[in-house]
Formats: sequence, structure tokens, C-alpha cells
Amino acid sequence: MINAAIAGATGYTGIQLINLLKHHPHVRINALTANSNAGEGFSKVFPSHLKIEDRICDATELERLSKTNDVIFLALPHGIASKTVTEEVLSNTKIIDLGADFRLKNISEYEEWYKTEHFGKSLLPQAVYGLSEIYREQVKTARLVANPGCYTTASILSLYPAVKYGLIDPTSIIIDAKSGVSGAGRGLSLGNHFCEANESIKAYGVTTHRHTPEIEQELSFANGSPIHVTFTPHLIPMQRGILSVCYASLKKSVSKKEIEEAYVDMYGKEPFIRIRRSDDLPQTNYVKGSNYFDVTPIVDKRTDRLIAIGALDNLMKGAASQAVQNMNIMFGYKESMGIDDCPLYL
Amino acid sequence: MINAAIAGATGYTGIQLINLLKHHPHVRINALTANSNAGEGFSKVFPSHLKIEDRICDATELERLSKTNDVIFLALPHGIASKTVTEEVLSNTKIIDLGADFRLKNISEYEEWYKTEHFGKSLLPQAVYGLSEIYREQVKTARLVANPGCYTTASILSLYPAVKYGLIDPTSIIIDAKSGVSGAGRGLSLGNHFCEANESIKAYGVTTHRHTPEIEQELSFANGSPIHVTFTPHLIPMQRGILSVCYASLKKSVSKKEIEEAYVDMYGKEPFIRIRRSDDLPQTNYVKGSNYFDVTPIVDKRTDRLIAIGALDNLMKGAASQAVQNMNIMFGYKESMGIDDCPLYL
Amino acid sequence: MINAAIAGATGYTGIQLINLLKHHPHVRINALTANSNAGEGFSKVFPSHLKIEDRICDATELERLSKTNDVIFLALPHGIASKTVTEEVLSNTKIIDLGADFRLKNISEYEEWYKTEHFGKSLLPQAVYGLSEIYREQVKTARLVANPGCYTTASILSLYPAVKYGLIDPTSIIIDAKSGVSGAGRGLSLGNHFCEANESIKAYGVTTHRHTPEIEQELSFANGSPIHVTFTPHLIPMQRGILSVCYASLKKSVSKKEIEEAYVDMYGKEPFIRIRRSDDLPQTNYVKGSNYFDVTPIVDKRTDRLIAIGALDNLMKGAASQAVQNMNIMFGYKESMGIDDCPLYL
Amino acid sequence: MINAAIAGATGYTGIQLINLLKHHPHVRINALTANSNAGEGFSKVFPSHLKIEDRICDATELERLSKTNDVIFLALPHGIASKTVTEEVLSNTKIIDLGADFRLKNISEYEEWYKTEHFGKSLLPQAVYGLSEIYREQVKTARLVANPGCYTTASILSLYPAVKYGLIDPTSIIIDAKSGVSGAGRGLSLGNHFCEANESIKAYGVTTHRHTPEIEQELSFANGSPIHVTFTPHLIPMQRGILSVCYASLKKSVSKKEIEEAYVDMYGKEPFIRIRRSDDLPQTNYVKGSNYFDVTPIVDKRTDRLIAIGALDNLMKGAASQAVQNMNIMFGYKESMGIDDCPLYL
Repeated sequence: MINAAIAGATGYTGIQLINLLKHHPHVRINALTANSNAGEGFSKVFPSHLKIEDRICDATELERLSKTNDVIFLALPHGIASKTVTEEVLSNTKIIDLGADFRLKNISEYEEWYKTEHFGKSLLPQAVYGLSEIYREQVKTARLVANPGCYTTASILSLYPAVKYGLIDPTSIIIDAKSGVSGAGRGLSLGNHFCEANESIKAYGVTTHRHTPEIEQELSFANGSPIHVTFTPHLIPMQRGILSVCYASLKKSVSKKEIEEAYVDMYGKEPFIRIRRSDDLPQTNYVKGSNYFDVTPIVDKRTDRLIAIGALDNLMKGAASQAVQNMNIMFGYKESMGIDDCPLYL
Repeated sequence: MINAAIAGATGYTGIQLINLLKHHPHVRINALTANSNAGEGFSKVFPSHLKIEDRICDATELERLSKTNDVIFLALPHGIASKTVTEEVLSNTKIIDLGADFRLKNISEYEEWYKTEHFGKSLLPQAVYGLSEIYREQVKTARLVANPGCYTTASILSLYPAVKYGLIDPTSIIIDAKSGVSGAGRGLSLGNHFCEANESIKAYGVTTHRHTPEIEQELSFANGSPIHVTFTPHLIPMQRGILSVCYASLKKSVSKKEIEEAYVDMYGKEPFIRIRRSDDLPQTNYVKGSNYFDVTPIVDKRTDRLIAIGALDNLMKGAASQAVQNMNIMFGYKESMGIDDCPLYL
Repeated sequence: MINAAIAGATGYTGIQLINLLKHHPHVRINALTANSNAGEGFSKVFPSHLKIEDRICDATELERLSKTNDVIFLALPHGIASKTVTEEVLSNTKIIDLGADFRLKNISEYEEWYKTEHFGKSLLPQAVYGLSEIYREQVKTARLVANPGCYTTASILSLYPAVKYGLIDPTSIIIDAKSGVSGAGRGLSLGNHFCEANESIKAYGVTTHRHTPEIEQELSFANGSPIHVTFTPHLIPMQRGILSVCYASLKKSVSKKEIEEAYVDMYGKEPFIRIRRSDDLPQTNYVKGSNYFDVTPIVDKRTDRLIAIGALDNLMKGAASQAVQNMNIMFGYKESMGIDDCPLYL
Repeated sequence: MINAAIAGATGYTGIQLINLLKHHPHVRINALTANSNAGEGFSKVFPSHLKIEDRICDATELERLSKTNDVIFLALPHGIASKTVTEEVLSNTKIIDLGADFRLKNISEYEEWYKTEHFGKSLLPQAVYGLSEIYREQVKTARLVANPGCYTTASILSLYPAVKYGLIDPTSIIIDAKSGVSGAGRGLSLGNHFCEANESIKAYGVTTHRHTPEIEQELSFANGSPIHVTFTPHLIPMQRGILSVCYASLKKSVSKKEIEEAYVDMYGKEPFIRIRRSDDLPQTNYVKGSNYFDVTPIVDKRTDRLIAIGALDNLMKGAASQAVQNMNIMFGYKESMGIDDCPLYL
């Protein structure tokens, strides 16, 4: 039994972490923190949890938390983790950071895309990018895991085998991704007012979204040399789910069979990745509430392109359940422990 | 470890039963049946369950199933259970019927409201109405449990203490209930076409809905003499959830305190019933995906009325999770086993 | 051709007024004001209106506006109209106030329910309650029209004939009303965040909603003596529409025929009221985007109750289009001019 | 005043045509036909139109209709128009076909993508493709107009200037389009069941959607030589609206300015096309219920790509209102007559 703390518990990722960890056979939730709701009961902030999780939320003090917890999940806005995670903290506890601060290896990229200084440079080298299926071995021994973004998990996993096996032209990648509104968090803005978001669709952050360098970093690693991609996120009038539709030109003479074999080779034994047939494409309700990532690589010989379609639940495989997956790997538990819920479908 | 069969597995209640029973530590799902999908893989019917539940659905043959299963869940249209559940079946297995056939004690009421003959009259006396909190003792030893309807669970539980303790005028009850679309099932009809159900609300089955006699039966038992109620269901553009808003005239001089005490007295120790304060009223997202029933009794002294507001998830406490709750009671397991998931909130 | 000003143009009612008046053959929109957006172009606030309505919004100065406009529509929060509408303003122009300040005849009721002092007491006697079908004659000559609230229009019109003709017990009225989210306006609150309002339903303002005294006032007038009602509003995950379901005990021996005749007698010739059959009940998409109010009075002899169901579009007959209907009456135009759009259905 | 008939009046496009033509100052709706609802009153099929359009729908007999109508709108499944529109019909009346039969100039393409024989080959040469802004001159004198598809209008208009002016590599075009559910029509299918379409997103018809050759035809004309595109449609949980996001590689050294000038040059004076700034991107609620098409061409110098984003209402500019726009052009009316409604926004 390990003690876990959730810092930033009162966001949509936080409540999801609580729901998962409460049923994890080896975890005891030991502390909940939330600076904006410090001193309030969790069930005051999320009345759904009345009589389930009534504890008072504390302020987030990592150093203190590190002394009594085996692992701390950080669900905080970017810029905070890089300031508060220290060597000392890491000498006491393990950190799974669901924010952006330790994802990008290149500090100048971080500072350019996030328009802020990075204060945790010295820790970056030991941060492991927590895309569980790709970095499983490194996660095992990590003290600091940078859990990937929701769009990035969907986009990287959709394309990884095709890039890794050199089957597509790496300069041709275009990712058109669609997300439910929970991806924007619980903060108030006109754009997530029900009457503004409902019954409408929009692209946003076109050419400037912060998940772009993260996708590029990982696909570049897979490729062996730098890749630039076009990444266009969209807001969809639904609560959860991301569909990532990725386009790329096939390298000359690459066949449908080669593509399919690459995906089977990389993902065929993964417990949480399902390769779907092209007559049964991924849709977000197929993975809703679960840790599954579904993908179909489609080869269009008419235009010689790969269209790889991936789906996940942004709050689960795109955030909370992948964080628990990483925790399981870090602590030597069965990887699916506590995150093997079936998709809800509805 | 007991063997369980789910008959009628390919509806929205069926998939929910599968999701729950798959994680129940004492249950092994032994058979899935669905006459309309017999011979098809379950994950063909619900592609969300690819690689999770790929078994072939059989035709529903209760006699055969009864020989190899400790319990059979029936999620079938009304009229089938009354024809196929027999003494012999019940001598082999326990039945939890999520349909309407064994709910009404008065056969002529059944035949009048359901416009069909009842073929299982001889079994009715032993059928226990599976409103777990009210009939817990009887459920313990039941071989045949009639799991209540979704609207009825919400409506009866909302009003039961007030009726039982004689605090309201039993002739004055009006129930205005609102349900998500999943309550209408997975069958196709113009009314549940996305473009027809979305962005609209309607009342339906006004004065004629079949859950009316079921509500009346149970409130009459609580009252000690017959009660007639006005029951008006509505279709709401959401997937899950029922909100039942119940109105009744307070008996002379009944106070807020007396009402509140009645609810606390009956529900205060119930693990799945939460009495909410009047400044924190039930809403369906507070119970989504969970077995909780939330209720607030409001006393309006200006009009001398009780307004009791109850909320549940129609697929969970209104169907599948209450069925599992009954199973737990019947088999002597901890009542919350496998159904203690936190509400999803979103 | 008359000049019209819209004060408070940048709310959901404001944009609806603009859309209607732009196509009214006798109206020229002469000024748009909005204190919170003063100095901004309208199409900056509502980008849908780029190149359609790019004018700059002014601050709201009624006196100045009154000198150059034949009519001013006020779509303002309560408490402002009562302070700024003066005899002088009314000597220059006509006012159609879509807010609450001049609806209640009893000032102490206003001050009690709205928790604020009323500063326009002297003007109250001349304010005409703008429920067009009931007060048509008085609206013709009014200088100050108090346009009714959305819930109130739906609720009063649903019950008026039954009360007026003395067919129901006036002490037994219960109104259970359901509204789309636009009724809550464009301001930000957690409750109208997409992820909080979507896929959920809740009652709110139970026993305390401010439309209660307005409903009571008008039904009391119809009744000839004071009536108190129970009024329970709900938030529904849709943008537009109100469904008002009204319950009352029938007076002894009142027949279905008498009820139906009362409704036909009062509404049979109304261009914007449709009495629907009980096998074709009102639903909000039937009136979406139109000035129609649909109603069905249902007699339930089993419980001796009337269930009157009414539907309207809260932004149209519940606000903007009824305001234009009143304007048409005030200026002697054909009553349906500019507001005879067909329902959108979807 | 001209007489118009609507064939196939009982679909979502049909009701929209009725709503528009009822308010057109020069049109009298003379006949409604619908084979599947022949003999039924229109308001029986769409109860929203009770007392507004109660006429009985006839069977569709074009020859008979052609004798008494100046124009016939065909809102029929593909394959019917090509069989029933004849030279004789066209000698009596004008036809605006909202279906696919006369859109593709290349019969073998039609037969390949639609898997059916084309029976109206002889009329194809005179059919004018009714993309109003591109073919205005030809529409003026056309007897047979093939009104474009919804996806195609959005996709072609988004890319046309860039292709026409030779600013992009025509082999690089990828169109990722998203549509509301009404695009799938009113017929019943599991995919448009509320509980299946709501809270989910999916791609469909990937590499095989029938709008592909239509898009390719028109962009090929603009290009002067054949173009093949990748076109991926998606189903979005909303009723109306299409967002078309189009990607293409810029030709070497093409600047942002050149792109913008091309769009201004072609669309700057169009009454129904709005070029939006890149900080105010198109979203479907900005055009909801209107004939507007909004577009923003974005130049991403980091990847040397054009991202052109276009939005329209699939039932309006994507179907009914563009059909009326064409009618206006054909009959010499002001082009905006009857279709200048403001966007609804919500």
C-alpha cells in the first residue's frame, strides 16, 4: 500500500484521478491539494462526491507532501511544477506531472511556445516522458515522469509506427485533432459557456497550439531526425474524447500490408492499444471512460496517403489513467491495475 | 465465485451489466444471450468492447441457462420473462428480472397497463420487488427478484419516507420526472433520432405511462391504503439520468423538521442514498455512472407543500447497478461489492 | 418607418431583437447600447454579425436615446429601468422593457422578491403588462410596456383559460417548468460551463424563483382573487426553449369538453397560439425560433386533474418576438409583422 | 409571383426550403410532394408546422408538376432525378436539383462513386453546377441547376482562390470536414440514434465519400488540370453546420499577402462570403441559419502550408438557401431576396 497525494485535485483531471485511485488496490489517497480551493471540502467543489470524498483540500506545498507520500500527482497549470519540484522533493517521493513543464527536452522550445521562463532546467535530464507504451522501460526507474498531453498521446500513438518504420514522408505530416470541452478545463471563459460551445464547432490555436512541439519532439525521436508537423486542434460540443486524424504521404511503393504490419508489430501486444479494422473505425465513445487508445491506419492508394485515425478519452489515457498506468509501472504493479474499466459507450 | 448469465445483453442495460459484472470479484460472466443478435459477437454489436468482450451472443433459452448459472439477469422486453421463467428454472438458478413482468402484484393492473396477458401468474407470489433499500430482507432469500423500473426507483425513493410516516396527503401526489434518452433503449424510432431529440424537450406518456401503477403499488404499501398519483415523464436531450420532482400537500402542521427526520430515519444509514441539503440540490451529473440515489425533501411553507427531488442514473441505480446490489444481497456478498464506483460527474 | 433603439443589445435577447428588427419592414435600428461593451463594435461581441451589424455600441443613456427614437427596447438587468425610465423619457418615446422592473403591480412584492428598492414607483400605474394576447387593448395605447418573463409567458398562457373560466381549484396549482440554458444569459458562471450544464438536469430556485409573483399576479387577476402557486424551474441541456407543465385539480364535475372549450374560446383565433391535440403534445423544437406558443390541456379523469402543457422559445415569444409583437400593437402595424418566421424544427 | 413546387418536401432540406420560400416575396409554394409521405399532411410529418403548412403531400410526378410550376426544387435521393427529369419537363419549368444526379460532368465517375447507372445522360450538358458565386453567369440562363452538396460547397469555396490563382501545390490538398447530424437526413439508423451520435465523434466514408469527385471536379476546373484530393468527413454531435479545414502546400515563395489578395479578389464583393481574420476564425454558430459562407485562409510559414478554414450551415448555404439563391439568379430577382436572415448564433 502506497500513499499518494493529488496536487490540483479540483480540476477535471483531479477528480478523475481521485475516482481511479480510490479503487486502486495498492493506493491510499493521503492528501488532496488545490490552491484555489484550499480550505474547502472536496465535495463542496464537486458535490458529486458528497460522502465519498469530503476531505478538506490543502494548499499545495510539495516539500511537505513529499515527506509523507510515495507518489505525488501534479495536475497544475504549467509553470508551477518547474518552480516547485526540486531535487529534495524527488529524493523523498516520486512525481507524476500531468502538466507541461517537464515534457519538452529543449528548454528554448518550452520557453518559446509557453512564453515563460523554465525554472527547473536541472531536473529536465532525469524527467521521463510518460508515454507508457513507448517509454515503459525508462518509466520503471523514473523519479520524475512527465505525463504526456491529451492531444499528443493521441497524435503520437497514431503515427508512431509509420514514422518509426520509415513508411511515410516525415515532412508531410498533418494532424487534424478534435477534442471535447473538458480538455479546456473547469475555468470559466466565454468559449466554454454552454450556449457558445454547444451546437458549434471551431478550430483554435491554429499553427500555435502548445502541444505541437511535444508531438514534434517524439515523432522526431522516432524518425531519427527533426520533424515539423501541422497540428490543428478543434473544440467539439461533447464533454470527453479526442479524435486525432493524421495525414501523411506514403513513401514510394509502401503497401497497405507494410503499414498494417508496422502497427501490429508495435502495438499488437499492448494491453491498452486496439488496432481497429478500417470498416470499424475509432470513435470516441468506444473508449469513453477507459484507458484504451484505438487506432486504424488507412492506406489510400488513390492519393498515396496514410490516414491514421486515433481515439482516446482525454481525461483518461489522455491524462489521469495514463498517469496511473505510469504509477503502476514505476511501482512494479500490474500495468492495468485500477485502470481496466470497460469503456462506458454511453 | 458464481456463474452469471445476462439475457438480453445487447441493450444499454445489458452492456452496463457486463461492465459491472466484469469487475465483480465474485462473479464470472458465463453466458451472454440476445435473440436479436444471436450468433453475433458482442463486440460486433458494441464495438467499444473489442478485445474486451468478444464472445458470441446465444439465443435466450432460460431452461438451458438455468442449469449452468447461479444467477440470470433478464434485460428483456416485457412479456417474455412471464412466459419463460418457470418453477423448474427457479429450482436451478436465481433470477433477477430487470423487466416489468413480475413487478406488479395485481395481475389485472399488469394486463390493463401493459395490454397483454400475463403467463407467469403462479410465480408472482414469490417474486420480490427489488427496491433494495425497502425490501432488503425479502431479497435475501428471494429466488426471483423483480428489479424496479428507473422512473419508479427515483419516484418511490423520493417520496417513501413522507408517505410512510404519514406526513403528506396521499391523494395529492404529483410526480414530474425527466429522463435521458437511454431510458428509451437502443431501438430506432424517430423520437430518438439525434436531430429530433437534441435541443428539445417533451412530455410523453402523460397519464398513461406504465411506471405509474408500479409507483402507486409501492406508495400504497407504504401508506397502508391505495394511492393514485399523477406521473408525467419527460425526454431530456442527454444520455443518462433521471430527475424526479415530486409534489405533495403537507398534512396540517407538519414541519420542516419532521420531514427531514423522516428522511434521515429511513435513509440516514443507507450506503447508496444521500440526503442533500436544500442549497445543494440533486442533479443528475452528481450520480452519473454510480449506484447513488440523491434526494432532497424541500418544505415550502408558503404553499404548504413538500417538493421532494430525487436523482439517479437510469442505467445504474435505475437498472443495472441496483440489479447487482440485489444480487449481492441474495448471495450474501457485501452490498456495495462491484458497484461502489464514484460518480463520473462528467 | 420608425426609429428603434436597443438598450442592452449584447445579450442573447439583444441579438435576437436585432435579428428580428433588421427584417421588420417599418423599423430602422437607430442605436445599439450596452454598458459592458460600450465602444465596441457589435460584431466584435457577436462575431456572427460581421458585415451585418458592425456598429459601435454606445453607453445606455435613455434620455438622449428618447429624443431620436420612437421606441426603445430595454434588455437590461433588473433595477436599471426603474431608475432611468422617467416621465420625460416617456414623453419623448415609447418603452418596451424586457426586464422585470415594471411587471409587478405590487411594489412590496417586487422589493421582497428582487431584494432591491424600486425607484420608478410613480410610473408603475401606467405600465402595461405586455402579455400580448391578454392585454392587447391596453398595449395599443401604452407608452410603457412591461414585457413578461419567459417562464411566466409559458406558465400563464398554459393556465389562463382554466383559471379564468373557473374550472380548476386555484389553490392547487403546481408549475414544473424546464428551460434551455440561454435563459440564464451570456454571463459566465460554473453552472453554465458546458461540461457542467451538458448531460445533466437540475431544478433551481425552488420556492424562490422571481417569476413566481409574476405568475401569481396574472393568474390572480384571471381568478378574481389571490392565487399562490408552486413554481419549480429546471435547467435543461439545450440552448433554447421552455416547456411549462402545469398541474391543477379540476373543480367537481368539470369535463374534458369544458376544458377544451375554454381554451378554444380564448385562444382559437389567436395567430400565435396553437392548441395541440393530446396525441401531438407541445415540444420545444416545434416552436424553436418562432413567436408561437403551443399548448395542450389534458384532463386526467383518473386523478381529476388538469395537466396543461405549454411550450415556447424563451428568446422569442418568451422575450424578443413578443416585444416586437407588442411594438406592432403599439404602433398599429399588423401584429405578426416581422415575427411570422416558421419554427426552425432543427 | 412565380409558382414553386418542392419535391421531397418531408426531409430536413425540404422543411428548410418551405421556411425560406414562405417568406420569399415573389414565390408561391404551389405543391409539396413526398413519395414516402404521399397523402399525409405536411404538419403531420413535421408537427412544428401545424396551422402553418397543413397541405397534403402528393406523390412526386414531375411531368404533372412541370405544367403548373415555374420552378421545381428536387430534394430527392440520388438516382431519381436522373430518371424523371426529361426534356419535356424542362421545356415547361426550371429545375433546381438539390441531389447529386446532375453534378458530375463525367458519367463514369458518377456511376463509379454512386454505384448506379445514370439515366439522364442527355441532359447533363445543359446542367449548370449551382455554386452561385462561381457559376453565377451560367445559372442566369440555366433550365437545370445542379445544386452542390454541403461538404462540397464548403470545401470548394475554401480552396478555390488558392487553386485558381495557382498559389498551392494541387497534388497536396487534404480536406478534413466536420458535419452536424442533419447532413445524414431524417432516415433512421443506429448511427444517428441520439445515444450513439451524442457525446462522440467519428470519421466516416474515409477515402470513399461521394462528395470527393464533386470537389475534385470543381477544383480541377479551377486548376486547369485534374486534381485529386484526400477528403475525410466527420460526424459531430450537433444538428447543423459544416466546418471544412483544408490543407495544402504553398508553392514556393508564396506569401501571406498573395494568399489574402487572392481571397479578397474573388470574394471581396460577394454578399454571402465573409473573409474572417485569423484571430476571428470561422465557427459554425457564426453562420447558423443563414446563407453565409465564412472563410479564413491561414498561412503557416513554419510548415509552408495553407490552412483554409470554411464554415457554413449545411441545410442553408449547403442546401436550401443556396438553392433559393440560384432561383433568384435564374429569375432575375435580387440575389439575397428571402435568404438574408441574420445568423442565429444560438
